[in-house]
Amino acid sequence: MAFTPYYAVIFTSKHKDMSPEVADEYLQLGGKMVELAKQQDGFIRVDSVHENLGITISYWKDVESIRKWKLQADHTMARNQRDRFYLYYNTRIAKVEREYEFGAL
Amino acid sequence: MAFTPYYAVIFTSKHKDMSPEVADEYLQLGGKMVELAKQQDGFIRVDSVHENLGITISYWKDVESIRKWKLQADHTMARNQRDRFYLYYNTRIAKVEREYEFGAL
Repeated sequence: MAFTPYYAVIFTSKHKDMSPEVADEYLQLGGKMVELAKQQDGFIRVDSVHENLGITISYWKDVESIRKWKLQADHTMARNQRDRFYLYYNTRIAKVEREYEFGAL
Repeated sequence: MAFTPYYAVIFTSKHKDMSPEVADEYLQLGGKMVELAKQQDGFIRVDSVHENLGITISYWKDVESIRKWKLQADHTMARNQRDRFYLYYNTRIAKVEREYEFGAL
């Protein structure tokens, strides 16, 4: 996918029960965060899967690109907003050192 | 969750259309891989979410623990078996350098 090393932001979350209005707001903000990421220099790709737990992983060329994206993302979904949506979330910054791939998406 | 740095194995996959028999075999093997991981020294936790795409992330104390688990896992689901189940898979070994958490799972 990309030459290692590159970086992954692993976002694991569990959201609260939300009214339809809040759920709508949440989805819009989530979409905006992904759009912001895609426009950012150094962005590689994003994978997002939701069941009971949600996992969104964005991949980046380097930590500097992540830092710039985070500045925008924090503005888009401020901390007090996140607390309205989530029961739990965890953000991990990880350096991808090796990668093995089979087939194509 | 754990003191950084620790390691993440990010497994992203898309499986083939499977007959009920093959799907059953696949689920059993998947469950066995997770059980093997949980019994292994250095295992921290695993998160697994499936929609169209599947993401399973296992977290480990160090690369040596991952290496030992991989030896067992490769025996449990050999390469030719994987090719029967998956259209695509990607395994990334990543070093978790920083972590921010809110709330509890």
